[in-house]
Amino acid sequence: MPIITLLTDFGSLYPAQMKGAILSRIPEATIVDIAHDIPPQNIEAGAFALMATAVHFPLGTIHVAVVDPGVGTDRAGVIVESGGHLLVGPDNGLLLPAARALGKPKAWKIGVGPRASPTFHGRDIFAPIAALLASGRKPESLGEVILPIDLDYGVPIEEGRRLRMRVIYVDRFGNAVLNCKQIPWDCVCLKGRHLRRKRTYAQARAVEPLIIQGSHGHEEIAVNQGSAAELFDLAPGDEIVLEEGPCSKESYRSE
Amino acid sequence: MPIITLLTDFGSLYPAQMKGAILSRIPEATIVDIAHDIPPQNIEAGAFALMATAVHFPLGTIHVAVVDPGVGTDRAGVIVESGGHLLVGPDNGLLLPAARALGKPKAWKIGVGPRASPTFHGRDIFAPIAALLASGRKPESLGEVILPIDLDYGVPIEEGRRLRMRVIYVDRFGNAVLNCKQIPWDCVCLKGRHLRRKRTYAQARAVEPLIIQGSHGHEEIAVNQGSAAELFDLAPGDEIVLEEGPCSKESYRSE
Amino acid sequence: MPIITLLTDFGSLYPAQMKGAILSRIPEATIVDIAHDIPPQNIEAGAFALMATAVHFPLGTIHVAVVDPGVGTDRAGVIVESGGHLLVGPDNGLLLPAARALGKPKAWKIGVGPRASPTFHGRDIFAPIAALLASGRKPESLGEVILPIDLDYGVPIEEGRRLRMRVIYVDRFGNAVLNCKQIPWDCVCLKGRHLRRKRTYAQARAVEPLIIQGSHGHEEIAVNQGSAAELFDLAPGDEIVLEEGPCSKESYRSE
Repeated sequence: MPIITLLTDFGSLYPAQMKGAILSRIPEATIVDIAHDIPPQNIEAGAFALMATAVHFPLGTIHVAVVDPGVGTDRAGVIVESGGHLLVGPDNGLLLPAARALGKPKAWKIGVGPRASPTFHGRDIFAPIAALLASGRKPESLGEVILPIDLDYGVPIEEGRRLRMRVIYVDRFGNAVLNCKQIPWDCVCLKGRHLRRKRTYAQARAVEPLIIQGSHGHEEIAVNQGSAAELFDLAPGDEIVLEEGPCSKESYRSE
Repeated sequence: MPIITLLTDFGSLYPAQMKGAILSRIPEATIVDIAHDIPPQNIEAGAFALMATAVHFPLGTIHVAVVDPGVGTDRAGVIVESGGHLLVGPDNGLLLPAARALGKPKAWKIGVGPRASPTFHGRDIFAPIAALLASGRKPESLGEVILPIDLDYGVPIEEGRRLRMRVIYVDRFGNAVLNCKQIPWDCVCLKGRHLRRKRTYAQARAVEPLIIQGSHGHEEIAVNQGSAAELFDLAPGDEIVLEEGPCSKESYRSE
Repeated sequence: MPIITLLTDFGSLYPAQMKGAILSRIPEATIVDIAHDIPPQNIEAGAFALMATAVHFPLGTIHVAVVDPGVGTDRAGVIVESGGHLLVGPDNGLLLPAARALGKPKAWKIGVGPRASPTFHGRDIFAPIAALLASGRKPESLGEVILPIDLDYGVPIEEGRRLRMRVIYVDRFGNAVLNCKQIPWDCVCLKGRHLRRKRTYAQARAVEPLIIQGSHGHEEIAVNQGSAAELFDLAPGDEIVLEEGPCSKESYRSE
């Protein structure tokens, strides 16, 4: 029996209703929560969380993800197959970064039946579809092939000696994940402060800001024993400008 | 093996102790969290969450719910059977709206043994009772039939051309659920603002307030891409007064 | 198949990556979350949560706990066996209070392979080790015996007629758990307020502060229908000074 993961911006209560909808159809399903605290309606942050996590699940896993500001409108639903995983959710870009990280995506459009609530497709459409897929139904029997809506984090933009990039996720430690896999410098300036590249958080002094490559492969702005989101006032969607900073002896001292 | 759901106002840690108590008795139990972030000791909000969710679980599910300001006093514990589900928790009204939504409730009083902690019946009484029920014990072998304490959300009160009603739940999006299943107007005034009825959140403009029937059947005050709880300063238990508002052409424009 | 519990300060997302790492190795594992909202990098609070909870799980349970400010440095990883449970995590004291509560601890050092992320040993080392242990591997085949780093909550310090103690955990109700199992007085003074010992929260009047022995055996500062953490401005790690207070008739009135 495949594993079914859930990712939403619902907080509590509504994810349990999705689980009830799944377990009513397959009582023996294994359901795993990825996150339900995605910033409300932030598709980009949800897509990052799914992308960073789906790859750690076994072949055959079915991922149901719902960050869905357009619920009840004519936005389609979609099943995406990629690298032996299946993804189910609204066709608004949410699933695509994960699907590309998993393999070569192929997608089918999901029809919305007349009995679905206009406000909760997670429970009334996507969870039941996941249960059908877990029971062995093929995606091609559930909808027509489509080209799904994509979501691209873009790449940092060069502005002279500066790089403009975007915060795409902030985790519980206040680490701000950037749409950048490789900042070309070891020392940078951000909002008047100097940050040095570290390999571990603990290499920085207490409350010293740093740049670090996160376990998901993206660069992060972090603060050892503190919150970069607070120190630099960063939230998902914010743009920041980094410039190469001086690598003073002082800032090397801690290593 | 039946599914066991948990709903509490405990946050973290204590729900896991309840799970340990269940899994020590039935290692193969399937346990599903409904919510653990009910506003502390808010029986009405907990009862709504349980009512909105229990109906989505399969026949035979056992729901353990604990929002229990009277723990350790002489308030009784109760098992309620309704519509093929079982509910277990304090006899303070928490279980009754869900039980009525599921079917025709029948209830048995649970005795409190001398070994129970005076502060944590969820772990020491209700979880073990749920494990017994999951193992096939009949409620009638665990206590005497009682008439459980009820909880009624009441109905909106007419005051001239106005309706006074109550917020019974606020979800993560800041949608405020009301003790009302059908506001008789399509345009209302609340605290000096005009709200129009929509069928989906996205039918409203960005940060426009609206009224909408939620997926649970109750009316909600909502804000598209925003929080009604913040905009109108609403929390569970608050009373609000709605009056019929003008349906101006302006407010139709977005549809 | 043993149960695997998880306790971290990760919030969301990263715990799911640990679950993916476990389920990729043992798809049929039963995984239970203890808490993921430990105050960031607060080893003492995490150790209390694990200690209070591990004892409620059945023999054979494997507890993976990660509150790990030193990740990627030369701090070791450790497997601890105690009372028929296994605990896995960083060797920084986090596991020891639980291990002592469970029985007589014995420990083995875990090596860190070259493929581990320098920032996420929970996913890359501790979760896979837990999966190996769940599959029947013996701890002695995974590392050398070591004496693990301990963590001691200490005991209250007498200062004349006063007792200095420490807040080690604050729960969702704002109850502040102390490093003290038995305050010798029934009436105490804290920051100019009088608190009386109660056996249940409801024995106090509304918003009256009290002392109470929690379900975990430690003393708590609490407020009936309110938050002691807010009223007294308390957080994990804070020191407080209690003195014996007058047991006035007034304060008895509510019983």
